[in-house]
Amino acid sequence: MSELRRDPVIGRWNIIEAEGPVGPEAFEVARHTPSGGRCPFCVGNEGMTPPEIYTVRPAGSAANGAGWQLRVVSNKFPALKIEGDLDRRGIGVFDFCNGVGAHEVIIETPDHQRQMSDLSLEELSGVITAFKVRSLDLRGDRRFRYTLIFKNFGISAGASLEHSHSQLIALPIVPKRVQEELKGAQLYFEFRERCPYCDMLHQDLQEDERLVCENRSFVALCPFMSGFPFEVWILPKEHRADFAQIGPEAVGDFARVLREVLLRVRTTLSNPSYNFIIHTAPIETREREEYHWHLELIPKLTKIAGFEWGTGFYINPTSPERAAKALREAALPS
Amino acid sequence: MSELRRDPVIGRWNIIEAEGPVGPEAFEVARHTPSGGRCPFCVGNEGMTPPEIYTVRPAGSAANGAGWQLRVVSNKFPALKIEGDLDRRGIGVFDFCNGVGAHEVIIETPDHQRQMSDLSLEELSGVITAFKVRSLDLRGDRRFRYTLIFKNFGISAGASLEHSHSQLIALPIVPKRVQEELKGAQLYFEFRERCPYCDMLHQDLQEDERLVCENRSFVALCPFMSGFPFEVWILPKEHRADFAQIGPEAVGDFARVLREVLLRVRTTLSNPSYNFIIHTAPIETREREEYHWHLELIPKLTKIAGFEWGTGFYINPTSPERAAKALREAALPS
Repeated sequence: MSELRRDPVIGRWNIIEAEGPVGPEAFEVARHTPSGGRCPFCVGNEGMTPPEIYTVRPAGSAANGAGWQLRVVSNKFPALKIEGDLDRRGIGVFDFCNGVGAHEVIIETPDHQRQMSDLSLEELSGVITAFKVRSLDLRGDRRFRYTLIFKNFGISAGASLEHSHSQLIALPIVPKRVQEELKGAQLYFEFRERCPYCDMLHQDLQEDERLVCENRSFVALCPFMSGFPFEVWILPKEHRADFAQIGPEAVGDFARVLREVLLRVRTTLSNPSYNFIIHTAPIETREREEYHWHLELIPKLTKIAGFEWGTGFYINPTSPERAAKALREAALPS
Repeated sequence: MSELRRDPVIGRWNIIEAEGPVGPEAFEVARHTPSGGRCPFCVGNEGMTPPEIYTVRPAGSAANGAGWQLRVVSNKFPALKIEGDLDRRGIGVFDFCNGVGAHEVIIETPDHQRQMSDLSLEELSGVITAFKVRSLDLRGDRRFRYTLIFKNFGISAGASLEHSHSQLIALPIVPKRVQEELKGAQLYFEFRERCPYCDMLHQDLQEDERLVCENRSFVALCPFMSGFPFEVWILPKEHRADFAQIGPEAVGDFARVLREVLLRVRTTLSNPSYNFIIHTAPIETREREEYHWHLELIPKLTKIAGFEWGTGFYINPTSPERAAKALREAALPS
């Protein structure tokens, strides 16, 4: 069973597995072996995963059998477990919470060979709809405060399975990073009475040099203060705090911009590993004027070292202006 | 020339190099090649580095020639440059600062084959004294607010040269991570009128299960909320906010505990890559009752992925209690 433990100074909660490995062999990166023919996410191997929570499959096909286009299942090795009541308490100076949460996997395609950027617009819209439906469903559980949606692509970005998938984790606490965003946005809003993300977006639309692409509802840009080379953010043009409120038309527009960004990154950087994260407001009833949901994509190109750990700052060798230009000029496959 | 750019929401400054690489080949990790016979930090190659700022060498030996035991030189490829006045300004919604700072390298030994854990107590005391002397000297420069001392060991921890060295960066701003520590410690102090680090230290000395080793002046422990497997902190037993005020006796005790920790980590985890960072108070005149300088060591065993980027939390597969036990039980070379 895992635990959440809080740093008494900086307020960061970490997830600690009580019975994890101790020896050096447990951490050997070289130990990672692709699952080969017996990938648990491939069609025909449905029995290797926990049962389907949500699925896109033809009417009449049997659950947990072949024929599906998309499956959502519980993670077989979850960071947090769904069972049990919340148990929060102090241990002397420290704070403890048991490891309650939901950890789901969105298997984006039955085909082991296809990456997310290979999906059709319709398939990618299906993935985004799955993010939305699962987020809304988990809100019914009063133990949860936040739903995190993210994707790790490639071993060096932390993916433990090759088959294209994303993940969703519902947490009993609002993550430190999200709290920082909410607090910073609140401060900005108090001062200027505008959403800081709307302001960034308008400035970048005007200045043009950090834009990657856009459509009716979304803008993709390399942010001014990018901590990572080729970092890309996708933001809805209209102010919206909550990703899960995305409408059916915007789902299609989001699929289109995401697909284009993934293809431009893949072409420009020779199919790099990457992480993306949907930054959205916590689970709550009120609408936030100061917050703006968005997706942050980080290609895995640089290393975190002592400077970054010590400062919380990042050293970015490629300015966002140069990155955006390279991404804009990428010759996409037709 | 590099720039500092600030995130308008979370307040993080990143260092961005204006003329850095754009193509994928620039980021190939596999491109890294050890410098082989022409290591700029080896004895005899002193001409390959900028001139000595500080050195330990026999009286009468010529500066920038052979014979030294330790050299401090400017980084040939600095993240920030020492020349120029501070230029801070807004660019629309964004904040900008030119890349002014000092970036020095502490070459710990003339011998390419020796790691930091191979150094004698006297040699390691010399390294710590160099950290102290350079920190105090850079305080004279009114442009600087913080001095960060850190070490990257091993390619996967971000070391670009194999030869044993540490680094020192003086910054015109207080890093985000340090501000978080100061703010959290201040909150704790207002509530309890005690330093939170002193409280952690006393609790761990009492509970015993997270201790790695100790001596007259220092304790090494795996912190309760460790975000990383085998994370080790070294704290002075007496409350001290400012590393650079360390006295000559404590230098020896610090060398002894650091050497033991490095040897225990090396033995337990088969000589892993690691980062360590000295967390200390900003450059200022007042003494802080609420802050406590310490060293944080992170062996490079896990990957940062979408969950960590999205939350600011870390998933740690090895509890600090199990890590501390393994480190305590390591059979050290006699």
